[in-house]
Amino acid sequence: MPHHGSVIGVFDSGVGGLTVLKALRSALPLCDFLYLGDTARVPYGRKPAEMVRGFAREIAAFLADRGAEGIVVACNTASAVALEDLQREFAPLPVWGVIEPGVEAAVRATRSGSVGVIGTRGAIASRAYQQRLEAQGLQVWARACPLFVHLVEENLADSPEAELLAHHYLDDRPDIDTLILGCTHYPVLMPVISRVVGPSVQLVESAGVTAESVAQYSRAALGPASGTGRITHFVTGDPVAYQHTAAVIGGVDGEIVSLPISRLALR
Amino acid sequence: MPHHGSVIGVFDSGVGGLTVLKALRSALPLCDFLYLGDTARVPYGRKPAEMVRGFAREIAAFLADRGAEGIVVACNTASAVALEDLQREFAPLPVWGVIEPGVEAAVRATRSGSVGVIGTRGAIASRAYQQRLEAQGLQVWARACPLFVHLVEENLADSPEAELLAHHYLDDRPDIDTLILGCTHYPVLMPVISRVVGPSVQLVESAGVTAESVAQYSRAALGPASGTGRITHFVTGDPVAYQHTAAVIGGVDGEIVSLPISRLALR
Repeated sequence: MPHHGSVIGVFDSGVGGLTVLKALRSALPLCDFLYLGDTARVPYGRKPAEMVRGFAREIAAFLADRGAEGIVVACNTASAVALEDLQREFAPLPVWGVIEPGVEAAVRATRSGSVGVIGTRGAIASRAYQQRLEAQGLQVWARACPLFVHLVEENLADSPEAELLAHHYLDDRPDIDTLILGCTHYPVLMPVISRVVGPSVQLVESAGVTAESVAQYSRAALGPASGTGRITHFVTGDPVAYQHTAAVIGGVDGEIVSLPISRLALR
Repeated sequence: MPHHGSVIGVFDSGVGGLTVLKALRSALPLCDFLYLGDTARVPYGRKPAEMVRGFAREIAAFLADRGAEGIVVACNTASAVALEDLQREFAPLPVWGVIEPGVEAAVRATRSGSVGVIGTRGAIASRAYQQRLEAQGLQVWARACPLFVHLVEENLADSPEAELLAHHYLDDRPDIDTLILGCTHYPVLMPVISRVVGPSVQLVESAGVTAESVAQYSRAALGPASGTGRITHFVTGDPVAYQHTAAVIGGVDGEIVSLPISRLALR
């Protein structure tokens, strides 16, 4: 009897999605994972939405061809602009984004109804979080924090610079009780952000909640997984640079395969 | 009669060297330029010296094959670790780095003999500037400013974040009268840095002085140039991302040609 749900494809513009991959592996230890980091075209946040949709479609097709039985869009920008297209195009293959789970977790977490969301300029400008939160009747404060990603990638997540910039970006927030970390890099900054906003603000990151929804679906719809927790990383940019930056974000083991964009487009 | 000195090759790990290219074009308006931005392998600063030397050698060979009659290493890291090798390997083709000109300018500028140098972690850790300055009998203060490059590339060179980080990196400097901007991105930050250190500290950036030495050599050794100021950009990473970031650093016109690393290695 063939086993299903044992290969999950995950992609991001770079290494940020590795925080989601780590949460997925904890939640689904018997799945195998294909992770695609599109580091040759990172960052997505400042590119036209139509271009990001094109990247997302070709990456999803690549992962599906390689046997992925579900796809996780572990990138806020791609989730904001491409998720519905991917769900339509690849149905009945399930496709998950990172925005809905974060929004749902914030709705559950808030008592006061006033929540905040921080992210890249692209994610905040898209209003993807804000619209969904406002549709739930919440008061929303949003702030773009363009240097947070670089703090993480420069291995400065726990540094005076991180503290300084967290105060700069967060000190003028209104009275919120919940803050969504709307970028897959930000969980690495959680200790600093938590110190700066204090214990009265609950931090919500989508890696864990996204992984939990994927796990629930997998168990319910696909039955027991038969993988061994193996991870294969496909990287469109330089594999050595990827390995360096992946280590900074917390490191994930597995084979790293170079995948030039030209091969991605042709498949 | 064939004209010489009309094609100059310039390379950097990314877009930072465009500040040098702009200065070169002002100094040598009749030269044509080949600029190679190795954006697929950026940043060089955290890679092993031997690896950076390998990159520099293959890039210099590519530029020489394309007709460059002189090569400018417009990257502090590559200048620090590869310049002498390149000069030996490509003689009699002249090869210039950006460190010596910056050092010479600082030696000329200082009255007190106390100078500072800021740069990426790689450039500062290499002690390339410090050793040369100390060999001239100067007192040297050095500071790595890992977020400055990202301020520039995120188009935040003139922002509250830039001001905040400039104070953080520079406020505890000793009593220096000269500060070398030891990274090709930093000229873009000059207004902020200048405000933070005040008028008593003279800022030295190597783009202009490097261009002046190249121009002097070209005029003396190669005779009148016969080019038209044309620039061709070869980019190992994504050309669209390159164009975005180049615009942020001040923009330079010219054709952009995609050059995958595989083709660079084969030539």
